[in-house]
Amino acid sequence: RPYTPREDKIADLARQIAAARAAMPEQHLVLGHGSGSFGHTAAREHRTRQGLSSSEKDRPSRRERYWRGFAEVGYQAARLNRLVMDTLHEADLPAMVFPPSACVTAREGKIIAWDLTPLRAALEAGILPVVYGDVVFDEAWSGTILSTEELFAYLAREMRPRRLLLAGLEEGVWESFPARKRLVREITPGSYAAMRERFGAGTAEGADVTGGMVSKVAHMVSLVRSLPGLEVRIFSGEEEGNVRRALLGEGLGTVIHA
Amino acid sequence: RPYTPREDKIADLARQIAAARAAMPEQHLVLGHGSGSFGHTAAREHRTRQGLSSSEKDRPSRRERYWRGFAEVGYQAARLNRLVMDTLHEADLPAMVFPPSACVTAREGKIIAWDLTPLRAALEAGILPVVYGDVVFDEAWSGTILSTEELFAYLAREMRPRRLLLAGLEEGVWESFPARKRLVREITPGSYAAMRERFGAGTAEGADVTGGMVSKVAHMVSLVRSLPGLEVRIFSGEEEGNVRRALLGEGLGTVIHA
Repeated sequence: RPYTPREDKIADLARQIAAARAAMPEQHLVLGHGSGSFGHTAAREHRTRQGLSSSEKDRPSRRERYWRGFAEVGYQAARLNRLVMDTLHEADLPAMVFPPSACVTAREGKIIAWDLTPLRAALEAGILPVVYGDVVFDEAWSGTILSTEELFAYLAREMRPRRLLLAGLEEGVWESFPARKRLVREITPGSYAAMRERFGAGTAEGADVTGGMVSKVAHMVSLVRSLPGLEVRIFSGEEEGNVRRALLGEGLGTVIHA
Repeated sequence: RPYTPREDKIADLARQIAAARAAMPEQHLVLGHGSGSFGHTAAREHRTRQGLSSSEKDRPSRRERYWRGFAEVGYQAARLNRLVMDTLHEADLPAMVFPPSACVTAREGKIIAWDLTPLRAALEAGILPVVYGDVVFDEAWSGTILSTEELFAYLAREMRPRRLLLAGLEEGVWESFPARKRLVREITPGSYAAMRERFGAGTAEGADVTGGMVSKVAHMVSLVRSLPGLEVRIFSGEEEGNVRRALLGEGLGTVIHA
């Protein structure tokens, strides 16, 4: 349902992050979250991600409607973020938000400018930086939306973390979906090619199509290919204690690496 | 009282801004607000503005305490900003926040980096950018706080607005305070020098000392000296309709210009 946050779940995740940070205080962590039903509902309605076409740019009424929708999607995404920030604060985590809409410039949906100096300073200070899927201004399309995965792919290229942990609804990447018969434990750029062929992934009928899992895996495979030291893990944030366990190094779900 | 927002007042101001924007849709406007009792209470307690001294930087416990306080002040400042954002949203204004903590880098309390591309794009799109007094990372002091006036002085140098409107509690700059006998209608760099001498402003017993009015005037005089085209107006936001009137060009309060 739109605009219905799972408040207990968010509070539980915040406590798990606090527990993992207390156990490994030297580990630097950047937290990201999507917009859940908040941003997505408004974004679909206003077609924010698509931006403005050249012909629309010249139509003042369409232009104005687009920007009002853009601001509305940003507002709704920020509304969920506040709930997250409040919950992190309650869990006694020194969190600080870096809203992409305020700092990022994109071109054709790709980030072309994001001054990470404040975010790096926050990490050095032991502060927990938080980013989230948000509207951003786009030099070609006027505006668009960047997903948390897209933001983290950029951050990974700039900051070279050891690990990228994607906690979602599924236990990992399934060979068949929705049958969920066998979890794929490991994906490399090599095995991914074979996997795509065997299961026809990449089409809507693909093996593991669940809420954009195909595109998420493709995105992450291309990321580890360009960053060979990076380990990406796709796992379930639903099972109790999983986020804490993953942060402390347990090998949950599906690992993607080069 | 700390953490006590004047919600009716904020709602009234939002409606005045909406009315002025509707009357002059072409006028570009950037909105700023202080942290009121929210940021200030926490900032005093944690001595955030002063940053970390060199000796403190080497003391892990002091360092950690400073950064926890820094994050707390940022959180409290953001908490008041959310209330402002909600109120602007209710007034149907397409507002978007640009938190300085996420985008600005300072050195010895002066802004040295702030990529204004997204903020300029917001203005172009007819979105209302909002900034507020906030914690920022500082390359010399570790961290500090920038006031809304300091942020706007930077924005004015970069964006060359026609006017800077400072709505506060007082009707303008008083010759004597708290006697409030005569309002100074106009201040120029030339008249300011005489004024300082006559009234001994700049000391704690100065003519117009009210919540930092002396330093505010000094700051703004130096700003108009370096930006001769700029008109700064200090006026009361308390009187009904004043913000709308000032936005629409009425000559309220004290004007400062070169």
